[in-house]
Amino acid sequence: MNLNSLTKTNGEWLRALGPDADIVISSRIRLARNLSSFPFTNRVNAHQKAEIETYLKGRLEAVDFEPRLSYLNLAALSTLDRLLLVERQLISRELANSEGPRGVAFAPNEIISVMVNEEDHIRLQVIRSGFSLDEAWQEADRLDDKLEEKVPYAFSEELGYLTACPTNVGTGLRASVMLHLPALVLIKQIEKVFRALQKINLAVRGLYGEGSRASGDFYQISNQVTLGKSETTIINEIRDVIPNIVNYERQARQALTRESRPLVLDRVQRAFGTLKSAAMMTSEETMDLLSSVRLGVNLGLLDDINITEVNELFIHTQPAHLQKLIGRELDSDERNSERARFLRNRLREIDPQVN
Amino acid sequence: MNLNSLTKTNGEWLRALGPDADIVISSRIRLARNLSSFPFTNRVNAHQKAEIETYLKGRLEAVDFEPRLSYLNLAALSTLDRLLLVERQLISRELANSEGPRGVAFAPNEIISVMVNEEDHIRLQVIRSGFSLDEAWQEADRLDDKLEEKVPYAFSEELGYLTACPTNVGTGLRASVMLHLPALVLIKQIEKVFRALQKINLAVRGLYGEGSRASGDFYQISNQVTLGKSETTIINEIRDVIPNIVNYERQARQALTRESRPLVLDRVQRAFGTLKSAAMMTSEETMDLLSSVRLGVNLGLLDDINITEVNELFIHTQPAHLQKLIGRELDSDERNSERARFLRNRLREIDPQVN
Repeated sequence: MNLNSLTKTNGEWLRALGPDADIVISSRIRLARNLSSFPFTNRVNAHQKAEIETYLKGRLEAVDFEPRLSYLNLAALSTLDRLLLVERQLISRELANSEGPRGVAFAPNEIISVMVNEEDHIRLQVIRSGFSLDEAWQEADRLDDKLEEKVPYAFSEELGYLTACPTNVGTGLRASVMLHLPALVLIKQIEKVFRALQKINLAVRGLYGEGSRASGDFYQISNQVTLGKSETTIINEIRDVIPNIVNYERQARQALTRESRPLVLDRVQRAFGTLKSAAMMTSEETMDLLSSVRLGVNLGLLDDINITEVNELFIHTQPAHLQKLIGRELDSDERNSERARFLRNRLREIDPQVN
Repeated sequence: MNLNSLTKTNGEWLRALGPDADIVISSRIRLARNLSSFPFTNRVNAHQKAEIETYLKGRLEAVDFEPRLSYLNLAALSTLDRLLLVERQLISRELANSEGPRGVAFAPNEIISVMVNEEDHIRLQVIRSGFSLDEAWQEADRLDDKLEEKVPYAFSEELGYLTACPTNVGTGLRASVMLHLPALVLIKQIEKVFRALQKINLAVRGLYGEGSRASGDFYQISNQVTLGKSETTIINEIRDVIPNIVNYERQARQALTRESRPLVLDRVQRAFGTLKSAAMMTSEETMDLLSSVRLGVNLGLLDDINITEVNELFIHTQPAHLQKLIGRELDSDERNSERARFLRNRLREIDPQVN
C-alpha cells in the first residue's frame, strides 16, 4: 500500500458530512482487547511480540467483515509515514513512536482501524464525521463480534475485558467526540464548559490526544470510566451531554454575530488574509488561523470556501502531510516556509466575498 | 478653492522623486516672521488679528513670486477641511485648532505654504520630496526676500528676526528632514540614533510634529538652535548628519536582507495581506503595516506596487483624507471600517509576487 495516496483522499471523518458537522468534527469509539494466550504488551518478550503481530495480522486480514481491512507493518515504515498515520488519526502517537513488531489494519474509507501491539494487543477504533457515536459504536461492536469469533480475548466474568492498564478494564471502551468550539473560546466561556465536564467524569483533551494543547480550538471529550457500566450506558452518558455543548457553542456564535459582527468579521478576514500571504507559518498558527476561517464559514461570513476544504487544510498542513505533499523531508524552518507557500498556493484563487 | 481636489493630487513631497527618497521622505525649511507694526499673535486683540490677516492676505496674493500663491481663510473652513490641510503638511495642527482670523497661502504643487496668525504672524514653509534641504532653503529664501520687499518684518540688528517664542529668535529658521527608518527600528538601533542626535542638539519627532508618536517608523529630525548661527550654518549642521543616518538605515536594510530575509519577507507579506483583508483598521495600524510594505518595496521584496503608491496610501488613509474620499463625515468606528474597505479596494488588484 502506497501511503502517499492518503494525501490525495480524505478520511470519512474529515469530510464534514455527519450530523452537526459545523461543530462536531468526529465521533470515535475505541475498544481495548487482549489475547488470552499472551502476556500484556508491556510484559511480552520480543519473540512473543512478533508472534502476536503475525497472529493478529492473519486474523485481521481474514476477518469476515466489510469493508475489508488492509494490514500495515509499522516497523517497516519510515518515521514520516508513521507520523502521517498519526495525523490521519489511524494510529496513536505512542504506537508510532514505540519499537518492535506492531501494525495497523484499516479500511480504505479510514472509518475503521485496528492497532496491533499498542498498550493492548488490540486497539479497535471507529471514527466517523459529525455527531455519530451510535453509528460508530454499532460498527465497532460488529467488528468486535466478528474478531471475537476468530480470536480468544482475555476476558473475566467478574471484571469484563482485561487490559494492560486498569483504567481500561471492563468494557475497554473509550467514546470520544471532537468538537470545534471557537466561539466559546472567543467569549471566554470554555473553562466553564471544562469544569462542568470534569464534574461528570468526562475528560477534555486537544486534537492529538493526551497532553496536546487545544490548537485550533479543537477539544476532544471522552469518558474516563470503563468499569461497572455497560457500553450503552457509557455511550449514553457522553452522547447526552454533547448536544448541550453544541447548543452552547451555537448560542455563542449567534451572540457574536448579533453583538460583535464587525469584530468577528475582522478576525475572520485577517486570519484568511494572513493564511494567504505569510512567508512562514507554524503548524500551531495555521490551526489557530484556520479555526477563525472555519468559524467564519459557519457564520456565513465567508463564501467561496467550504468546511470540507477548511478541514482538509487543517490536515494537509500537519508536518507529515505537508512533507508528503511537497515530496521530501523538511526540517522545521523549511516546513514553516513550505507550509506558508502551500497555503498561499491553495488559497490564491479564493477571494472570499465579505457577506 | 475646492479642497476636495487635494485628494485627487499628490503634493510634491509625497511623490518620492527626490534624492534618497527610499529613506528621506521630505526636507523642510520653515521661517518664522512677524510684522514690525503689530504685537505678536498671542498679544493682539481680535481687531488687530483681523487687520493682520487682511494685510497679509493682500501681500501674499500680490507677491511677485512664481508659482503664484492662493490664499485660504481658515476660519471659514470646516474642521474637516482644516484637518485635511494638516495631513497635507500645509498647516500646523495648532493653527487648525486655534481661533479667530487666520489663513494659509500655498502654491498648487504644495511645495510652498505660508501660514498667517500662527504662533508668529508669518510662518513660511518650503517642503520638498527627498533629501533636498538646499533647494528648499533657496526657495524659502527667495520667497522671504520677495515678501520682505512688501512687508516690514520685526527685526533687531542685535538679535535678528524677532519671534513670539524666544526659541525661534535670530534666524527664525527650522530645518527638518522626515526619515523612514523601519530597518533601524527592526534591529533595535533607533534609540542609539536618537541619543547621538540629541547630543548635537537636533530634535526628533514623529510625522505630525511635536509630541506625536513615530507611527509608521517616520522620524522628523530638526535643529533646535536658531540664534547665533547663520542660516547656512544651521542647514549645514543638519544636512551633514543626515547622510550618516541614511547610510546607517541602508546598512540595516542590507543586513536584514542578508541575514534575516525570510523573517523580513514574512513580515512584509503579512503586512500586505492584513492591509488587503482586514475589516477594521485604525490609522496607527495602517501606518505601521504600510511601513513594512514600504520597506518591502525598497528591499525589492515586493513588486507590482511602487513607493509613490505606498506614500499615497499613507496620506489617503489619514482621517480627513479618508472622509473626503468617502464623501462624508465618519465617527471613529466608521472610519476604521471605511479605512479597511478603502485599503481592500485599493489593493484588490495588486498581487505582489514574492521576489
